[in-house]
Amino acid sequence: MQNFVLHNQTKILFGKGMVEQLGTECRLHGQKALLVYGRESIKKTGLYDKISTLLSDQGVSFIDHGGVVSNPLLSHVREGIKKAKEEKVDLILAVGGGSVIDSAKAISCGALAQHDVWKFFTGKKSIKATLPLVCVLTLAAAGSEMNGGMVVTHDEKRHKFGTGNNLLNPKTSILDPSLTITVPHDYTVYGAIDAIAHIAEFYFTTKEVAPVQERFMEGLIINIIDSCNRVLQDLSDYDARADLMWCATLALNGWTAAGLGLVGFPMHMIEHTLSAHYNVPHGAGLSVVMPGWMNYMVAKNPHKFNQFSQRIFSHAKPDLVENGYTGVQSLKEIFRKWQAPISLEELSIPESDLPRLARESLPLARNWRMNDYSEEIIHEILRGCL
Amino acid sequence: MQNFVLHNQTKILFGKGMVEQLGTECRLHGQKALLVYGRESIKKTGLYDKISTLLSDQGVSFIDHGGVVSNPLLSHVREGIKKAKEEKVDLILAVGGGSVIDSAKAISCGALAQHDVWKFFTGKKSIKATLPLVCVLTLAAAGSEMNGGMVVTHDEKRHKFGTGNNLLNPKTSILDPSLTITVPHDYTVYGAIDAIAHIAEFYFTTKEVAPVQERFMEGLIINIIDSCNRVLQDLSDYDARADLMWCATLALNGWTAAGLGLVGFPMHMIEHTLSAHYNVPHGAGLSVVMPGWMNYMVAKNPHKFNQFSQRIFSHAKPDLVENGYTGVQSLKEIFRKWQAPISLEELSIPESDLPRLARESLPLARNWRMNDYSEEIIHEILRGCL
Repeated sequence: MQNFVLHNQTKILFGKGMVEQLGTECRLHGQKALLVYGRESIKKTGLYDKISTLLSDQGVSFIDHGGVVSNPLLSHVREGIKKAKEEKVDLILAVGGGSVIDSAKAISCGALAQHDVWKFFTGKKSIKATLPLVCVLTLAAAGSEMNGGMVVTHDEKRHKFGTGNNLLNPKTSILDPSLTITVPHDYTVYGAIDAIAHIAEFYFTTKEVAPVQERFMEGLIINIIDSCNRVLQDLSDYDARADLMWCATLALNGWTAAGLGLVGFPMHMIEHTLSAHYNVPHGAGLSVVMPGWMNYMVAKNPHKFNQFSQRIFSHAKPDLVENGYTGVQSLKEIFRKWQAPISLEELSIPESDLPRLARESLPLARNWRMNDYSEEIIHEILRGCL
Repeated sequence: MQNFVLHNQTKILFGKGMVEQLGTECRLHGQKALLVYGRESIKKTGLYDKISTLLSDQGVSFIDHGGVVSNPLLSHVREGIKKAKEEKVDLILAVGGGSVIDSAKAISCGALAQHDVWKFFTGKKSIKATLPLVCVLTLAAAGSEMNGGMVVTHDEKRHKFGTGNNLLNPKTSILDPSLTITVPHDYTVYGAIDAIAHIAEFYFTTKEVAPVQERFMEGLIINIIDSCNRVLQDLSDYDARADLMWCATLALNGWTAAGLGLVGFPMHMIEHTLSAHYNVPHGAGLSVVMPGWMNYMVAKNPHKFNQFSQRIFSHAKPDLVENGYTGVQSLKEIFRKWQAPISLEELSIPESDLPRLARESLPLARNWRMNDYSEEIIHEILRGCL
């Protein structure tokens, strides 16, 4: 195990009805919030009105900043920063999934900076201060509700860049699984796949032998598959939604990664390029990239893929490499059963685009210090996703 | 899954050499510490001198409060509170295992109270404020380094009572596995058994079906067994010590318990009475009580014991109850292989004492709200430990 520092200060309120505590939690940190959210759906479900009442009951006013899209855009973040500065808000409130929370995080640091917020993403500036952030999660997927990471897409350059800092950790995140009951089949699946991908990145890219963390991660993958299966049987199954939601948070809150040392995000690196250029949902992109990347990796890391195959799917072929491939195939079949895309063709991405995509993945590979990924290698992985 | 609030703010510095940061961490929280520790062993190993230098380099002075014994005593806690008040310390520094950290926690709240500290343990007063606490862990066992629980024994009454509060969570805990290399075979084993017991209490007493938490707990038990086996092969195996240490912390830091709802501590309840009266090491007492309690419970919770037996030991007898007993037997055999006691006889506790022990366990059972444990039931469990 590598040395590590672990200090995740986000307070989690988990369960049905926990949203009732939103006003009190917000009041602990501020009096005037910027309310960041996505589409109008939170107005249709009545959540918007409820939040408005809860805030007002505690004397917290808010400025509206709706309209976050999936693969959230820098331009919209910049607008939010402008509002936050002009209106002198002292708190950011995010109501939504990963895109909304990531936008809110970018606003929380951009609002206290004198320079453009994109400089945090390109590494030209480092984050020194943030406005306090409170989240109400409505989608089990990204894990952003309990970590200090964020990903935003540059509108013109189509760079989907991420960065992280402990200061970006939400003060409080409210995780009420009943708020995810309305999430349809496809986005439920994309969320589950995103969570699996987060774990798989750590699991397969660490150079450490870390048996404690490995069992933890394997347990989460088993439970994500199982709880997603149960949700797809009955979208309103609260217990299944709860298990899936908690797994998605644990997949990326730092608990499993503590002690793993330096890890890479090769699947996210490639997927970010896809979704930035084709605006496919992040989980749909990962559903295609993950099995492709894994198949590329099996022979390079046979022991780990064999373990994955054994412990997740109980496969026991005597040949390690063969057993590893069988595990990847099982995962792909689950994605197929879930009706997620498993080929670039299903995302309408033609083979002729692959050289460009490989080339455009490189800046992110370098940005994330994955220097062993050349244009050729990324191209080869993408060909395996056709 | 039950609703829960999770907010564990302890900062963990894990790994070899992390103790070097002790001075800086202490200086964040105070300038004058009460240094709580156990026997003279930290002087022999040079750790005492090292700590002294690290504190002095950061301008932190300290008052000495050594002499904590295992099953730590209220009288020694009271002495520490007196020193802390007289010397106006603004920080408590614990260097040791669970007994030392628990004593330090009791001092940290007692030093700011106007009444006797024991009232916190009997529930007559609730904790409102604490001095900041920094820990250097030297034993993988109790998990106290990352939670808000503490257990202290009343010298005369021989009541071993525990209580908890978020305010008791250490600000920072330094977990350097290399500091545990000198822990001998027996105490290494007692620590591992204590950690297994913490998990087993949650695992078997929750009334929730909690598949995410269950896999997490099963993974930890597997890893505690495995890493303890490795340590016993070579007491200086750093990686094995590290795995064991991290498991012991995770066994009781609230991560696995979040969502389990109300849980009981029946094994600890019975063991506390044993160790309070016979002063046996806590882990040795648990090594006897755990298989006895489990055997009493198998038929009452066959599904869970079958799952335990299957997932920890790969037992697959078709009859659930029989398979459950086989799992308990496997655990007992591991304790035996580790040379831990597995009968009251080995602890020199005669059968004639059992009625008294059962009777004296009752106040704790009531204190911990385990109302389904009568004197007769406790007596029956104890007979199963003969």
